[in-house]
Amino acid sequence: MEPVSPPPKADKNISKATFRRLPHYHQIASTYEGIGRKYISSKELSQILQINETLVRKDMADLEIRGRQNLGYEIQTMRKMIEDYLGLQEITEALIVGAGHLGKALALYHGFEPYGLRIVGLLDNDPEKIGTSVGPYEVLSVFRLASIVERHRIKLIILTVPKSAAQEVTDIAVAAGVRAVWNFTPTELRVPEGVYVRNEQIIAGFMTLSYFLKSISENEGAGK
Amino acid sequence: MEPVSPPPKADKNISKATFRRLPHYHQIASTYEGIGRKYISSKELSQILQINETLVRKDMADLEIRGRQNLGYEIQTMRKMIEDYLGLQEITEALIVGAGHLGKALALYHGFEPYGLRIVGLLDNDPEKIGTSVGPYEVLSVFRLASIVERHRIKLIILTVPKSAAQEVTDIAVAAGVRAVWNFTPTELRVPEGVYVRNEQIIAGFMTLSYFLKSISENEGAGK
Repeated sequence: MEPVSPPPKADKNISKATFRRLPHYHQIASTYEGIGRKYISSKELSQILQINETLVRKDMADLEIRGRQNLGYEIQTMRKMIEDYLGLQEITEALIVGAGHLGKALALYHGFEPYGLRIVGLLDNDPEKIGTSVGPYEVLSVFRLASIVERHRIKLIILTVPKSAAQEVTDIAVAAGVRAVWNFTPTELRVPEGVYVRNEQIIAGFMTLSYFLKSISENEGAGK
Repeated sequence: MEPVSPPPKADKNISKATFRRLPHYHQIASTYEGIGRKYISSKELSQILQINETLVRKDMADLEIRGRQNLGYEIQTMRKMIEDYLGLQEITEALIVGAGHLGKALALYHGFEPYGLRIVGLLDNDPEKIGTSVGPYEVLSVFRLASIVERHRIKLIILTVPKSAAQEVTDIAVAAGVRAVWNFTPTELRVPEGVYVRNEQIIAGFMTLSYFLKSISENEGAGK
């Protein structure tokens, strides 16, 4: 589930819609940079994102990314400015709580490093999992959550526990100093003011796909 | 990465913003139904979602979900109407292509069944993975992709291959009859008209969290 709005501290100069498009712009910039392109035009960006070119120009102006006549926006500058704006050039250390399938997959995912996200540990409450290895990590007892958060000043936890444990783990982590929760459980968490929860509801993506497949099935009378 | 807009066939009576809120409404309904609640008011919904109550009422009216005076919306009806609208009561069979960490985690995820999503197989191109078991699945060769899609009339693939293989796999699947791609690779896929791609960019969630943590660190001078 995407959050209904950007985090509370979001910049007043950037609209919610622009904020939501930042990961798209960043991905396009990274992809194009990877194949050796130097510039990209607002027209090309508007075609890839299927939005109006005027909107692309406004987004870039709001982000203070300036284009060059007949060339467009310098791709590397665009990528770096978005990274700077989002704080991706700083290292963010995070603990994963819940060493199930999803927790392990996230611990082993190689795509986080370039964005400054460093997984520093993986916790679980299952005695059969504690002490086992997941890639470079040894699964630690969830009873150590508070002390690890305090000692290493961890600000972010990645929550992949069962739904029934989600609120309790959050309460303990927040009391120990965590300020942000990346919530992969299908739970609406209660947190005090000043703590931000980002909900990832994987099923939301499927709902959109299901709607599309239902529509074509009805329109084309297919698949029956 | 969430799609910039709902799928092309989206109902004209439902705005993009309302469409995006459907998974939230559905999750709240499921949660409250699970704890035995029968009704929920627009006020309560507006507080949970942190949106205006007028907007909640408009969403419900657009979805033709009617409230009862002094009681609110009947939760079970609300859940079922959203499921019906999204086609979640039909079974959707899907193939996962890519038996890496994420592919395996999705294959073993128990949260899809209640939404009608049935994983029917898991494919990979790695000879060391082909023939191994992942829960109830035997990993099959990706060379069988086209024939499995054709024989079982599969309309949806879940793409968890490396970035470099994403377009090729998509082309083969689409040529064999696939109409929707749930894309977990960081790639902008090209597909013919009439085929819908839903991009899941897990890192987008982290970008929002990173921005929040950067803001509090600047405001509070903490973490330095």
